[in-house]
Amino acid sequence: MLYIVGLGLGDERDITLRGLDAVRSCHKVYVEAYTSLLCFGISSDGLSQLEKLYGKEITVADREMVEERADVMLSEASESDVAFLVVGDPFGATTHTDLVVRARKLGIKVKVIHNASVMNAVGVCGLQLYRYGETVSIPFFTETWRPDSFYQKIQRNQQLGLHTLCLLDIRVKEPSLESLCRGRKCYEPPKYMTIHTAINQLLEVEEMRRESAYSEESKCIGVARLGNEDQMIVAGSMKDLLGVDFGPPLHCLIVVGETHPVEEEMLEFYGIK
Amino acid sequence: MLYIVGLGLGDERDITLRGLDAVRSCHKVYVEAYTSLLCFGISSDGLSQLEKLYGKEITVADREMVEERADVMLSEASESDVAFLVVGDPFGATTHTDLVVRARKLGIKVKVIHNASVMNAVGVCGLQLYRYGETVSIPFFTETWRPDSFYQKIQRNQQLGLHTLCLLDIRVKEPSLESLCRGRKCYEPPKYMTIHTAINQLLEVEEMRRESAYSEESKCIGVARLGNEDQMIVAGSMKDLLGVDFGPPLHCLIVVGETHPVEEEMLEFYGIK
Repeated sequence: MLYIVGLGLGDERDITLRGLDAVRSCHKVYVEAYTSLLCFGISSDGLSQLEKLYGKEITVADREMVEERADVMLSEASESDVAFLVVGDPFGATTHTDLVVRARKLGIKVKVIHNASVMNAVGVCGLQLYRYGETVSIPFFTETWRPDSFYQKIQRNQQLGLHTLCLLDIRVKEPSLESLCRGRKCYEPPKYMTIHTAINQLLEVEEMRRESAYSEESKCIGVARLGNEDQMIVAGSMKDLLGVDFGPPLHCLIVVGETHPVEEEMLEFYGIK
Repeated sequence: MLYIVGLGLGDERDITLRGLDAVRSCHKVYVEAYTSLLCFGISSDGLSQLEKLYGKEITVADREMVEERADVMLSEASESDVAFLVVGDPFGATTHTDLVVRARKLGIKVKVIHNASVMNAVGVCGLQLYRYGETVSIPFFTETWRPDSFYQKIQRNQQLGLHTLCLLDIRVKEPSLESLCRGRKCYEPPKYMTIHTAINQLLEVEEMRRESAYSEESKCIGVARLGNEDQMIVAGSMKDLLGVDFGPPLHCLIVVGETHPVEEEMLEFYGIK
């Protein structure tokens, strides 16, 4: 049996009792490390917090491992119970559908244990979840790669009066260019997009396209460290939010659509004072 | 302090450790009963399961209580720690934004403890959450009241190639017409919309509007008892799903948009065999 267990958004105490039961019953425990684990408060020390709580040794499965060596994990799961821990929900922003498909093809039973993820916890900022349109991802722009498919999606959502959740890029364990050239693997330090970078990229694309999907006056909500003790939520125009220090990652950004009265009260509550 | 604690989707063991800590530390504990509590496996017996686990007496706050008597709960929360338990996530399909706004106006601190809700757990059916458009609600049609605003929303999502999550109506503690006439409160038995009723209503509206937003051949996924041990997920055309017995509530329905290869593999997996 392969258990895919959502850890939620805060720290080790955000696992559910059902999730904890599963982890404790498993022969082997992996934790997915290639999205937001470091922000989850799990450093080398954080991991040992998890291990202490679960009473289990945990193997960190980084991007390479999940993508290239999933076979090992799956073969273990065909013989005994294995838990694969995932930040947020197993089918949240980062989805593990592929792993489920592979497991099932091998005849391995899969049990999913859900938890909160950014996709639903973002409701805390006061905008109704059913008033969101398509979610967009904002990738880090480079000199040569500036994909802006998010622009049209935000535009469509705005036209329909819907809110847009923007998920901001995370780069963890990217091989450094230098290391690739030298034929051995070294990694860039992890990089998490801030709300400032996201807004600057959004405005850059608007500047280029000039279709008025949004402007620096557009109402947004910046959310930092969602679900953590020190979570920060600030509502204001894009321009205003550029002046706010949101602190450490993870950040996400919501471009606000048409609002209802209760939503407006919450926006006011989170407004820059 | 008012803790608003998500219980998740299954049973009492779906609370998080953080949620359990909060409940156990509270002076008074309420559980919201006007959405899907009965489906949550909390009957009079289920409630005592919760009480046993939490080591606390729990007051069931029905619709009237939350809407009319929230003042009592809030005044208690201004003096000591009170927990308000909510099925799913506090800001999932049913949102408690209003309660948060009222608490904050009274200067009461609010702490939200997130959990899975239908809004993210529905990812388990294999369609990527960021490929969903606006969520719709399908209300029970009556002889005289047949609101169909969902039609246009599904149509728009379909045109954009996006999936549509349809939340199906729940009627709990509706005063019976007879009791209203007699001036005393009696209630209709709870009513939960099935996938069959939802599809029949969808097709009835299509039949009337004839704008081809969808048809009985449209690909859908029916999901029953999401997050429970006996959850059931079946993919097929609307017509096909009318022939499937989904069993007890809660049900929800997804109208599938354009699919990616991994999504298709999952659809195949859940297809009618």
